[in-house]
Amino acid sequence: MEMTIEQIDQTVLGWLANARQQILESIKQPLDVDEKSSQRDLVTNVDKEIEQYYVQQIHALMPQARIISEEGYGDDVQTMDGDVWFVDPIDGTLNFVKQHDEFASMLALYRDGQPVLAWIMDVMNDQVVHGGPDYGVYCNQTRLTMGPDYGLTDGLVVLSGVRLLLDQHAFQEIAKSSIGFRIYGSAGIAYMHVLLGKAVAYVSEMKPWDFAAGAALGQGLGLKVSDVDGQPLNMLLSGAVVVSTPRAHADIMGIEKQAKGL
Amino acid sequence: MEMTIEQIDQTVLGWLANARQQILESIKQPLDVDEKSSQRDLVTNVDKEIEQYYVQQIHALMPQARIISEEGYGDDVQTMDGDVWFVDPIDGTLNFVKQHDEFASMLALYRDGQPVLAWIMDVMNDQVVHGGPDYGVYCNQTRLTMGPDYGLTDGLVVLSGVRLLLDQHAFQEIAKSSIGFRIYGSAGIAYMHVLLGKAVAYVSEMKPWDFAAGAALGQGLGLKVSDVDGQPLNMLLSGAVVVSTPRAHADIMGIEKQAKGL
Repeated sequence: MEMTIEQIDQTVLGWLANARQQILESIKQPLDVDEKSSQRDLVTNVDKEIEQYYVQQIHALMPQARIISEEGYGDDVQTMDGDVWFVDPIDGTLNFVKQHDEFASMLALYRDGQPVLAWIMDVMNDQVVHGGPDYGVYCNQTRLTMGPDYGLTDGLVVLSGVRLLLDQHAFQEIAKSSIGFRIYGSAGIAYMHVLLGKAVAYVSEMKPWDFAAGAALGQGLGLKVSDVDGQPLNMLLSGAVVVSTPRAHADIMGIEKQAKGL
Repeated sequence: MEMTIEQIDQTVLGWLANARQQILESIKQPLDVDEKSSQRDLVTNVDKEIEQYYVQQIHALMPQARIISEEGYGDDVQTMDGDVWFVDPIDGTLNFVKQHDEFASMLALYRDGQPVLAWIMDVMNDQVVHGGPDYGVYCNQTRLTMGPDYGLTDGLVVLSGVRLLLDQHAFQEIAKSSIGFRIYGSAGIAYMHVLLGKAVAYVSEMKPWDFAAGAALGQGLGLKVSDVDGQPLNMLLSGAVVVSTPRAHADIMGIEKQAKGL
């Protein structure tokens, strides 16, 4: 018997609650921190433990599903056919290690390349934004609706700090064109700002597990989701991803075109 | 009969609790927003009401004291002699208006130019960091101690977004030298990150009411407080202010000297 969307949502909310308790316990102990690609790209024992927990739960719930995950406990996924899960156990690991705050835990389920459900948990604030296109988007139990359609001149934009300093994808011009820009160091925390109407856009270059949940929830809320050239996302590749209000999306596309001399 | 430091602290904590209730009520109504120097420099009816409330309370508590405040209800203060209060009713007004979150309310009391007590309230999180050099520094009821003395390569730094884009005071080099940088859009929220050990430094160019409380609390906790040239702060002028761990302070001073070719 196939599970309903609501049953899947409730099941995963239970996993997140368990993961949250495990993370809060782990924070009391010294973390075991390793560097991945650089000193700024960290992984801890907690990232690994939480990812293993999610992967086990997904396998038990949906044995046929394949998993794209950050820390290597998932599958080698080459197509988006069927059920594909995206898992980012601790998003914003540098914040997790240095701040013990401002990090997220994210999951997303896509079916034949289309978003079904996704979850972003702000662990320390005990908030989960969850839902999908056919289900609606909720913050904990409260149904969310898209806020006012403000453009960049009326809204805050959230950016990736590393890309801003390198001025990739015209990030400095996007920052200057906005009423103000913010840098939080976690895609999940950034997406929550956009989904909750606190910011009009989040733009960053990211891996699929970083943007899968934000893209699904953004689409579910009626926000614009694309790469910086306005094209649909390739869910199997890293990319420069925009989730924004329609007006801010038009503003950002204009800036990107101008930067490319189009 | 003169009040003790503890009595002053408890009295002001009461003002902050009242201000918080008033702010939470006000957020439910449409805000009356005016531009000051620019579209990004806003003032609302709430900034004005809360400042008037603090100014009235200070006048009743200490009739001889003079007040340096953001929205114009204070005094024209030309010296730091005697008791001088700094008042920033809503710090991060753009966040207040756009996010209804991530803003602070700040007060500081200086006596003959030396910090006595200061208060930074993260309004939405219901957290107040308060105290001073002879009293200790507390987050709500919990006594704070200075965290590990990490330098820039081991710690997050919080910066002003506007100054970063303009690359004033070698901000881009400070950002690149750190393990990561964050931009929150509120001096009070930034100072709380440093005071709570989540970041090793906050550097920004600000008005006295923006930095008075953070400088007093930083000094109270044993952090380094100076301008970007390592000189003591002039409490009557705008300045580029550093509050940081000792090691991050040395790192930042080195970057500033190199940028000036010294």
